[in-house]
Amino acid sequence: MSEALHLTAVGVGPGDPEWITVKGQRVLAEADVIFAPCSETADESVALRIARPWLRPGRRVELLPLPMTRDRTRLEPAWRATAAKVAAVLQEIAAQRGAAHGAYIVLGDPLFYGTFAHIWQVLAARHPAVQVDVVPGVPAFVAAAARAGLPLATTSQRVAIVPATYEADDQELAGLITAFDTVVLLKVGRVLGRVRSVLARLGVVDRALYAAHVGLPEERVVHGLAAIQAEEAPYLSLLIVRREEHP
Amino acid sequence: MSEALHLTAVGVGPGDPEWITVKGQRVLAEADVIFAPCSETADESVALRIARPWLRPGRRVELLPLPMTRDRTRLEPAWRATAAKVAAVLQEIAAQRGAAHGAYIVLGDPLFYGTFAHIWQVLAARHPAVQVDVVPGVPAFVAAAARAGLPLATTSQRVAIVPATYEADDQELAGLITAFDTVVLLKVGRVLGRVRSVLARLGVVDRALYAAHVGLPEERVVHGLAAIQAEEAPYLSLLIVRREEHP
Repeated sequence: MSEALHLTAVGVGPGDPEWITVKGQRVLAEADVIFAPCSETADESVALRIARPWLRPGRRVELLPLPMTRDRTRLEPAWRATAAKVAAVLQEIAAQRGAAHGAYIVLGDPLFYGTFAHIWQVLAARHPAVQVDVVPGVPAFVAAAARAGLPLATTSQRVAIVPATYEADDQELAGLITAFDTVVLLKVGRVLGRVRSVLARLGVVDRALYAAHVGLPEERVVHGLAAIQAEEAPYLSLLIVRREEHP
Repeated sequence: MSEALHLTAVGVGPGDPEWITVKGQRVLAEADVIFAPCSETADESVALRIARPWLRPGRRVELLPLPMTRDRTRLEPAWRATAAKVAAVLQEIAAQRGAAHGAYIVLGDPLFYGTFAHIWQVLAARHPAVQVDVVPGVPAFVAAAARAGLPLATTSQRVAIVPATYEADDQELAGLITAFDTVVLLKVGRVLGRVRSVLARLGVVDRALYAAHVGLPEERVVHGLAAIQAEEAPYLSLLIVRREEHP
């Protein structure tokens, strides 16, 4: 029975439902159950909102609430509980039908940030009967560049991708912006004010592209930071800072 | 008539035709003409091979030969000729039908390396009647990680993406591998031997993921470099070097 439990992590992209891959769309249409991670507090899943147009009516959906924290003593039990729930649901379906295929939907790409890598690690260690594969997705920074018509890199250029939230050191951020042709700062929501002053000191504040909710109706993609209030930037907003002036 | 000339750059992903986005698939189905960049010497286009399943039979396809060189004095005239051809074909179609929509297909994503950003720059400067938009695609390194089940980054980790061909300085490469949780080395084909000795000196040669032709029938995705001959690595092969041991 063990090969009969199958989980596909599907990157749904950052916002526009049509940014999912054809393979991802097919997996969503075929799967027995959709696993949708969501925040503990808000009972909604952005990934599910994006995936919704591709689900058959009446399709079984299991929400997976995950805490928004960096505290490993809270995260690790949540990852274990999530993996256990995924395995239990697949086993329940397989008991009826002989096999079960679940789709675990993830914003952007499943292995580029996000928690799926942790869930997978627990599945491999504690629920090895569940076979896992991954359908890649378009990361948010790639979609943001497409919306803005901003080249991310050409020929010999170098790109650094850094979660801004965790970059305690302004000096280090300044060093990255000096050393790389393109710096992508993820999760700038809570630190936008501080990041803005670093960029201002380097004289590149006008060269930053700000992107939030890319591809969703509430999308904001803006060149320069003059019009952006730090307090309005959501957690998952990002900046792309290019050394080269965009022609 | 000027708004009637429309070009959509479509990222077709790195190999598997099903890695194209749903939006990209739709644009390929609807466009009047497909523009497919190819090398000057080989008269074939990898992007076209990937896009082929989504084209209507008899669909007009224009190959765009581009030189494989770093010599700007050869590249710039080629970019101008390519942009002029795109504009001329769209004008010819619009003269008959009143409007023309072309799809310019690109391996991976249109604005993440590759030449499309240069072609677009020429179009904007010399053929401003052509309206351009971009459908993002899955970059090769994202797909390689999905195939290998290798996390690219989690939570606070930092990623550097560097075309290996242009990294003349071994010391600098070693510095990147020490400073970043994940280093993606693109275009390792011609320099794999040298890169391997840098990785060996740092003791991380077993931690490198090698990927070539990801998603195509001739795909090779291999953990470690022991089995890889430098001379067999194609130009577009890549390495992903993770600091953290994958569990």
